[in-house]
Amino acid sequence: MNRIFNFGAGPAMLPLPVLEKAKEEFLDWKGLGMSVIEVSHRSAEFEALLTETDNLLRELAGLPENFDILYVHGSAQMQFAAIPLNLMPLKPAHKAAFIESGHWTVLARKEAARYGKAVTVASSEASNFNHIPDYDVSTLDADTSYVHITSNNTLFGTRWNEFPDTGDIPLVADMTSELMSRVIDYNKFGLVFAGLQKNLGPSGMAAVLIRKDLIGHAMPQTPNLLNYDTYAKNHSMPNTINTFAVYMMNLVLHWLKDQGGVPAMEKINAHKAKIIYDAIDNSTGFYRGAAQKDFRSQMNITFTLANSELDKKFLDEAQGHGLYALKGHRVVGGMRASIYNAMPVAGCQTLADFMADFARRNG
Amino acid sequence: MNRIFNFGAGPAMLPLPVLEKAKEEFLDWKGLGMSVIEVSHRSAEFEALLTETDNLLRELAGLPENFDILYVHGSAQMQFAAIPLNLMPLKPAHKAAFIESGHWTVLARKEAARYGKAVTVASSEASNFNHIPDYDVSTLDADTSYVHITSNNTLFGTRWNEFPDTGDIPLVADMTSELMSRVIDYNKFGLVFAGLQKNLGPSGMAAVLIRKDLIGHAMPQTPNLLNYDTYAKNHSMPNTINTFAVYMMNLVLHWLKDQGGVPAMEKINAHKAKIIYDAIDNSTGFYRGAAQKDFRSQMNITFTLANSELDKKFLDEAQGHGLYALKGHRVVGGMRASIYNAMPVAGCQTLADFMADFARRNG
Repeated sequence: MNRIFNFGAGPAMLPLPVLEKAKEEFLDWKGLGMSVIEVSHRSAEFEALLTETDNLLRELAGLPENFDILYVHGSAQMQFAAIPLNLMPLKPAHKAAFIESGHWTVLARKEAARYGKAVTVASSEASNFNHIPDYDVSTLDADTSYVHITSNNTLFGTRWNEFPDTGDIPLVADMTSELMSRVIDYNKFGLVFAGLQKNLGPSGMAAVLIRKDLIGHAMPQTPNLLNYDTYAKNHSMPNTINTFAVYMMNLVLHWLKDQGGVPAMEKINAHKAKIIYDAIDNSTGFYRGAAQKDFRSQMNITFTLANSELDKKFLDEAQGHGLYALKGHRVVGGMRASIYNAMPVAGCQTLADFMADFARRNG
Repeated sequence: MNRIFNFGAGPAMLPLPVLEKAKEEFLDWKGLGMSVIEVSHRSAEFEALLTETDNLLRELAGLPENFDILYVHGSAQMQFAAIPLNLMPLKPAHKAAFIESGHWTVLARKEAARYGKAVTVASSEASNFNHIPDYDVSTLDADTSYVHITSNNTLFGTRWNEFPDTGDIPLVADMTSELMSRVIDYNKFGLVFAGLQKNLGPSGMAAVLIRKDLIGHAMPQTPNLLNYDTYAKNHSMPNTINTFAVYMMNLVLHWLKDQGGVPAMEKINAHKAKIIYDAIDNSTGFYRGAAQKDFRSQMNITFTLANSELDKKFLDEAQGHGLYALKGHRVVGGMRASIYNAMPVAGCQTLADFMADFARRNG
């Protein structure tokens, strides 16, 4: 098998040792004589897997005791409804504030507007979201139930470097494209959520890390399976959980621990990102970074070719070098290299070398 | 590997050739140099897989042209909220009728009550749901938006043999434990749904087969990812779909086609069920069927031992014969043998032989 470097934004590369282990035991998990996807979610073996996954995630994230871990149906976007349904009732005004740094924050705000007041308090849309907007959170109305941010913007290639201190108002962060890729002080947050399909596993499920005191306030109209209380009271198994996603996430977390955990992974990720950003910055204008330098993502690197007529040639030749799915999202154009935890350094180096060579030949 | 016969209610056995194929190509799907779970849901290869899955399902089910197929997040139970949110507005009274034949219909009715009037028009609860309640659908109020039934009751081992003609009022059926196991005339239904994890694949996703004219009526408060219109307009990919579930379902449908399709599978299933029901009925009272004979399920066979003190011995010895997860649900007690499409005839025969031998030795 000729394994390629997949720079797609997600579903994305998973660590090869994880895939190899899953393949090896696919027909016979734990010697049970069946596949992990055939095992009952109510079996002792699966419940042990789920608990071990909790413990691993808590340990690796450094998650405080006063947080619960919930595994919820429907990828991250389902949370755009679940969050207002659960958290807007924290204050009588049912108001949520959005600091809009990209497409997903906008979508989240529009969904929240079904359930209460969804207010844009800052936005970088006027500059096509090429930076994180500046905003003084001390000016937030006291009757705000929560503040919603997207910590890393997959489409635009930006990230929050420092997170704001919102005081008594819970800070909610969509970390779909960077959970477990950088060290986070969860004490700053009320709720952090992420779809698995970038850094943690396959698609279809999301992890919600939530301060326990924020559970139990849902609106009466909340679907039972969008109510955090339902998940918290039933160890995320009010109904049949996505067993395969839990299993794969467990393997990915073990792999992450083997790499030295999140602090070590954060350093590797910074090194990987620098390799590609250097290729952009040292190209004397052949490539241009799409995001402002101060807000550059370590996960999604967006860049354009000064001569966009070369885009197709760039993509075709890149594939010839085993470098796949580099085409940028249409709203930014150009290229995007998504380099989640599982992307090896070698993938970034191969891309940087190809970029330099391509620029030399076409500059 | 010593593969066991898994009689669990779900997640459940999958066909061995399906698991073997998934294992074989787990690291390299379609020669792409990546796992199917790493491939973008927006890639041409995945979109082709999804379309082929639609076509296979439509062909094998004999689904009429005026039905859409939606793949939705959250297993079947998420539909307990989605259905009233989408269908109650069909009539101004926002009223749904429930013919309660078991646990899941009751749960569905309770969830629907969040969004309008949820009325029990018949119930067999008084006899612990050991049959399908009789009900004359011609007496339904004309202002009823839809009628909800559970076609096969996993816990209690009963099924609807004939489906009622509800005329202009859409009939909604939870077929989680029997979709694609029997021939269905979909023209009788407005909406049929099923979680995959019994007859169709892994857990985490559900298939919704819905008459097209029933789409587009959702309440404004409907979460975007519970709105059927969102799925219908985006080929079930408004966000990242559960790619692994689609892939596995595709393999299962190919296998089903290789077995001769649904009519052939229905005959095999009837044969399998008869083997075990005969073992019960020929035991001269050692075993007792829990469901009334006229309503016996072909998927979930519930029975008790006349002497319940032998239950543990029965279960322990069964495991020694490779017969797993036979313990019944606590609300019925005794045993339950779930024999979905993927359970081989040999599994049923091994169980029947064991039952006869156990009765002989302990009778």
